[in-house]
Amino acid sequence: MLIGIERAGDVIPGMRRDLVLHAGPPISWDRMTSAMRASICGGLVFEGLCTTVEEAEQLAASGEIGFAPAHDHQAAGAMAGTITASMPVFVVEERNSGLRSFVSVNEGLGKALRFGANGPEVLDRLRWIRDSLHPLLKHALAISGPMDLKQMIAEALRRGDEVHNRNKAATSQFFRDIALALVATRAEHGELEKALRFISGNDHFFLSLSIAHAKAVSLYVEELGSGDIVTVMAGNGVEVGIRVASLGKTWFTAPASVANVKFFEGHGEADATPTMGDSYITESIGLGAFALAAAPAISSFIGGTVEELIARSERMREITVGEHRHFRIPALGFRGVPSGIDVRKVVATGISPLINTGIASRVPGVGQIGAGVQQIPLGCFAAALAALERQS
Amino acid sequence: MLIGIERAGDVIPGMRRDLVLHAGPPISWDRMTSAMRASICGGLVFEGLCTTVEEAEQLAASGEIGFAPAHDHQAAGAMAGTITASMPVFVVEERNSGLRSFVSVNEGLGKALRFGANGPEVLDRLRWIRDSLHPLLKHALAISGPMDLKQMIAEALRRGDEVHNRNKAATSQFFRDIALALVATRAEHGELEKALRFISGNDHFFLSLSIAHAKAVSLYVEELGSGDIVTVMAGNGVEVGIRVASLGKTWFTAPASVANVKFFEGHGEADATPTMGDSYITESIGLGAFALAAAPAISSFIGGTVEELIARSERMREITVGEHRHFRIPALGFRGVPSGIDVRKVVATGISPLINTGIASRVPGVGQIGAGVQQIPLGCFAAALAALERQS
Repeated sequence: MLIGIERAGDVIPGMRRDLVLHAGPPISWDRMTSAMRASICGGLVFEGLCTTVEEAEQLAASGEIGFAPAHDHQAAGAMAGTITASMPVFVVEERNSGLRSFVSVNEGLGKALRFGANGPEVLDRLRWIRDSLHPLLKHALAISGPMDLKQMIAEALRRGDEVHNRNKAATSQFFRDIALALVATRAEHGELEKALRFISGNDHFFLSLSIAHAKAVSLYVEELGSGDIVTVMAGNGVEVGIRVASLGKTWFTAPASVANVKFFEGHGEADATPTMGDSYITESIGLGAFALAAAPAISSFIGGTVEELIARSERMREITVGEHRHFRIPALGFRGVPSGIDVRKVVATGISPLINTGIASRVPGVGQIGAGVQQIPLGCFAAALAALERQS
Repeated sequence: MLIGIERAGDVIPGMRRDLVLHAGPPISWDRMTSAMRASICGGLVFEGLCTTVEEAEQLAASGEIGFAPAHDHQAAGAMAGTITASMPVFVVEERNSGLRSFVSVNEGLGKALRFGANGPEVLDRLRWIRDSLHPLLKHALAISGPMDLKQMIAEALRRGDEVHNRNKAATSQFFRDIALALVATRAEHGELEKALRFISGNDHFFLSLSIAHAKAVSLYVEELGSGDIVTVMAGNGVEVGIRVASLGKTWFTAPASVANVKFFEGHGEADATPTMGDSYITESIGLGAFALAAAPAISSFIGGTVEELIARSERMREITVGEHRHFRIPALGFRGVPSGIDVRKVVATGISPLINTGIASRVPGVGQIGAGVQQIPLGCFAAALAALERQS
């Protein structure tokens, strides 16, 4: 359930002004990719810890700023995943456990902090999100009451989204609900219009909420602590890491790569940041690349024929523990999506989980330069299995 | 293109205060079904031509009121299809020809005039639509400019609608655009909220627009006047009629039936009004039952397994002249929907066109009691073919 939107520093456990959260497994400043560094520098300027990107570079390298995976703080971020203390984050609560996840507001495509863009228009938009959109959405969510994301995602799967790289229908549904609540705030018309136009203008707006939903569910699986089920899959652009329910918060990593993606016109492998982002948490619960049969229209965006994509996606049933009870695919006779990746099955079959991914340019500020279906390296699962065997 | 919303009497050719338009082929008052009669009586009270439904019965039978098929006036109406002069109608323009179609605002499910309900709450809602929603939508459409319905329908097919009995995604898309324009009118918040809640609260709101789109396209086909292509399929509850491009505005009819529908709990064939409504114009251009492969989720509403529904829908390719260039189905490798029903092919193959239909109760005021996939009787096509052969 989406229960609100709050300042990161007020709700994320352990969050403080001199800490920056990033995507993927732990990584030190000197090993980060240029896109992640640029994103973090933008975050430091936004936070008011320095005034220019150049000063931010020095500050980040000085050791005065801490860095931590968002996933270690019940949060998750798309692409570079930068979260700083004064950013607003959606708060999503898993109702069985009361566990909460935190994800920042999606800025839209093109020049965005998560792709390493950090120019004035990017920072101005972040400030507008913080100063104008946040209070308005907070008021609207107080009026609407908690919103049932599980139900929205289930319906979006019936409307051609896989709710990771395609969020058009989910965003439309969310827009219907939030528009009513926003108008009910009786805020000034100009402000309302700006907020509605921002949400409506970004077909990926819902991505933050599908990540937050998946993270909240995964936190619950992690808390249960049983089973060799994957609770996190994430990349920092250098390494890809996974976590497993029965092994708690330990990361198991392997090198990140650039493979199997479709580059936008004029871009290629040389420009590309390897696998980066926390959004693969959606695949961990059966969405995204695990639910391609729900979203045949995505083939034009990520490449491949519809039949091939569905066949690859359906192979995920060989490495999962079951089917999702609520997330069903009409075109497969309402069969549930494959859900709950079993580390032992991945190693035994040699089938690594698919992920729908966007590719950020290595050049800060350029933004997204490709998209595709990648795989989480088998090395992560081999490392986790070794740990499981040491443990038993 | 949706270009506006106007009073029926101001825009529908030949419309006047003492004329009521109805669904299907021509029919006299004494032969109409009880649901259509009740709907028309509600329309006469709404129009202020009398004050009670009882008076309306007398007035309708007196010969002072004219009745005509909506399709004979460039209009179309779902179910009973009642249109009176002061009702607002969406105006949709076919851009090649400048031809315009006119369809009234969908009132929502349950008790609605189109199902023969004519109680005070139905008439009050119609008055609110006329007095409050109409000026607001008119203002909003003036701000937004023309809306491209073809594009919305094409996208809705990618989002699991067949855009006749399932309009959830299309309504969500329309809501996104109209909400922005409504807020931009700067109307009072309470009024805005009521309008937004009305549109958002009715998953079939878009049906009026898909009917209007299909009617505008069919008017163009009719004007071209070439080919033995069906331009209208409609029922009045007693007869089903079709029209054919090369035969102009002549109707070819056969008796209407109740067959192949799934009744809602507590209802059965004895309560049912046979095939009634103009909304099958959507099937004429390749939507609805011709596009079931786009909307597998609908099987739970209209009955049948997903595979069966798609197979039946795909058989329509045997009786159509081609595939739609813009309306494509991702799950079929982006193949176009079968479009343009050829009278000669229907007769030669004996395959009659499928239609997605709702079933109105015979008892006025009860509303919808079932839904399903029916067929247009072969008799209509045999009659049209005989006329074609006489002509040649």
